[in-house]
Amino acid sequence: MAMKLYELCGADETNLFSPHCWKTRLSLAHKGLAFETVPVPFTGVATIEGGTNRKVPVLRDGDSVVEESYAIALYLEENYPETPSLFRGEGGKAMTQMVIAWSTVHIHPVIARMALLDIHDRLAPIDQAFFRATREKLFGMTLEEFSQTRAATPADLAAALAPLENMLARQSYIGGETPLFADYVVFGPLQWLRTVQGESGLPQDGKVAVWFNSLLDMYGGEGRKGAAAA
Amino acid sequence: MAMKLYELCGADETNLFSPHCWKTRLSLAHKGLAFETVPVPFTGVATIEGGTNRKVPVLRDGDSVVEESYAIALYLEENYPETPSLFRGEGGKAMTQMVIAWSTVHIHPVIARMALLDIHDRLAPIDQAFFRATREKLFGMTLEEFSQTRAATPADLAAALAPLENMLARQSYIGGETPLFADYVVFGPLQWLRTVQGESGLPQDGKVAVWFNSLLDMYGGEGRKGAAAA
Repeated sequence: MAMKLYELCGADETNLFSPHCWKTRLSLAHKGLAFETVPVPFTGVATIEGGTNRKVPVLRDGDSVVEESYAIALYLEENYPETPSLFRGEGGKAMTQMVIAWSTVHIHPVIARMALLDIHDRLAPIDQAFFRATREKLFGMTLEEFSQTRAATPADLAAALAPLENMLARQSYIGGETPLFADYVVFGPLQWLRTVQGESGLPQDGKVAVWFNSLLDMYGGEGRKGAAAA
Repeated sequence: MAMKLYELCGADETNLFSPHCWKTRLSLAHKGLAFETVPVPFTGVATIEGGTNRKVPVLRDGDSVVEESYAIALYLEENYPETPSLFRGEGGKAMTQMVIAWSTVHIHPVIARMALLDIHDRLAPIDQAFFRATREKLFGMTLEEFSQTRAATPADLAAALAPLENMLARQSYIGGETPLFADYVVFGPLQWLRTVQGESGLPQDGKVAVWFNSLLDMYGGEGRKGAAAA
C-alpha cells in the first residue's frame, strides 16, 4: 500500500501551500518513494489519523504514523536506507537543525508578513474563520492590522536570505553538489509564498532564484505542483 | 616534527584574537593533534611561509602548507582519519558552508562593530598603522567614525545569535551531542570579542552562553588561552 501524506490545502484542494508539507513532499520525491496525497483543510488537521492535536505534515506508512517534517525525514532515512540519503551522515542530521533554526527565525516570519492575507483568502469560509481566530490570538491584532503594520517586501525577503545567497557562491546546494533535506527546509517557506501568490518574490538575478528554480524543476517538476489557480 | 600554526597576535604575543585562527586552534584540539604556535603581527601575515598575500591561519605540516580554516579542517580530516571527525560525513562538510555563510553575514559584522577600536588598541604601533590604513580604506571612514556611527551593542549580538539560541533548545551543539567544526566557526568571532575585550558580551542566562562556556572549557581549557591581559 502506498504511503499517505496528509497535506494542508486551500478551498481548492489542489492548492497545497504549507511550507512544512513541502519539505516532506520533496523528501519523498528525493527518495523516489510513491505516495498518495490526502488534502486536509485547516479545520481537519487536528484530528488526522485519529489525533486530537495534530499538525501537518502527517505520514501514514503501513502501521506507522509520523508527524513533523524533520521527524518524517529521519523516519524515511532509517526505514528506506537503500534510497538516496536526505542527510549524508550524522553531521548532516545534526547541522540540519541549524538550518531549521535559521529558517524559523529569519525566513518564516518574513513570508508570513508578506502572505498572511493571501493565505487567508485561499481558504474555504469555515477555515478562514479558524485561521483568523487562531492567528489573531497569536499576533494580538487583526489580520488586516498585522498585514498593514508588519508588512514585509521582497527586499526584506532578499535581506533575510543573504546567508544563503552568500553560500551559493561556493556550492550549488546547502547539501553540496546535490540537495539534501536542509535545502527543502528553506525551499518550504519560499514555496509557501509562491503557492499562494503565484510568484517566488525572489530577485531573478540572484543565486537564490537559480537554486529555487532548480528545486522547482527537480524530480519531474514536483515543485511546480500545488500553486493556486490564477 | 610538530605542526606549526601561524596565528595573528597583538602587541602582546600571547594575545591571540583572530576569529579564523581560533577555528583552527579548536580544530587541532578536537583532533588531539599537537602543534606549535607561531604568533604573527598584522604586518607579518602576508609573507608567512614565503607567501606574498597570505591570510591567517596558515598551517605547516611536514611538507604541506595549508591556508584558511575550512581548508585546514578538510586537510586534517583527510590526513588524520583516525582522529575524531570535524564533520561526521559528507553532509556535514557541505552544511558547514551554510554555518560559515550565516556567521559571515550576521555575526562577524556585529563583532567588528563592537570591537574595532579595541582590536586596534591591542596592536603594536606599526601594526596599528597597517590596521588603520587597510580598514579605513575598506569602510570609507576613520576607525573612530566607524565605531561611532556603526557601533553595535550586546543586544545587537544577541539578536544576531537568535538562530543559534533557537537551535540550542533542541541539541547541545551545532554538531549534535558533541561539537564539530561548525561550532568552532561560530565560536571564532565570539572568541574574537572575548580576547580583545575580556568579556563574551553574551547574556549569561542564555543557551548560547552555556554553549560558549562549554567550548571555552573543552580540551583542557584551550579556549581560555589567548585573552588580552587586563
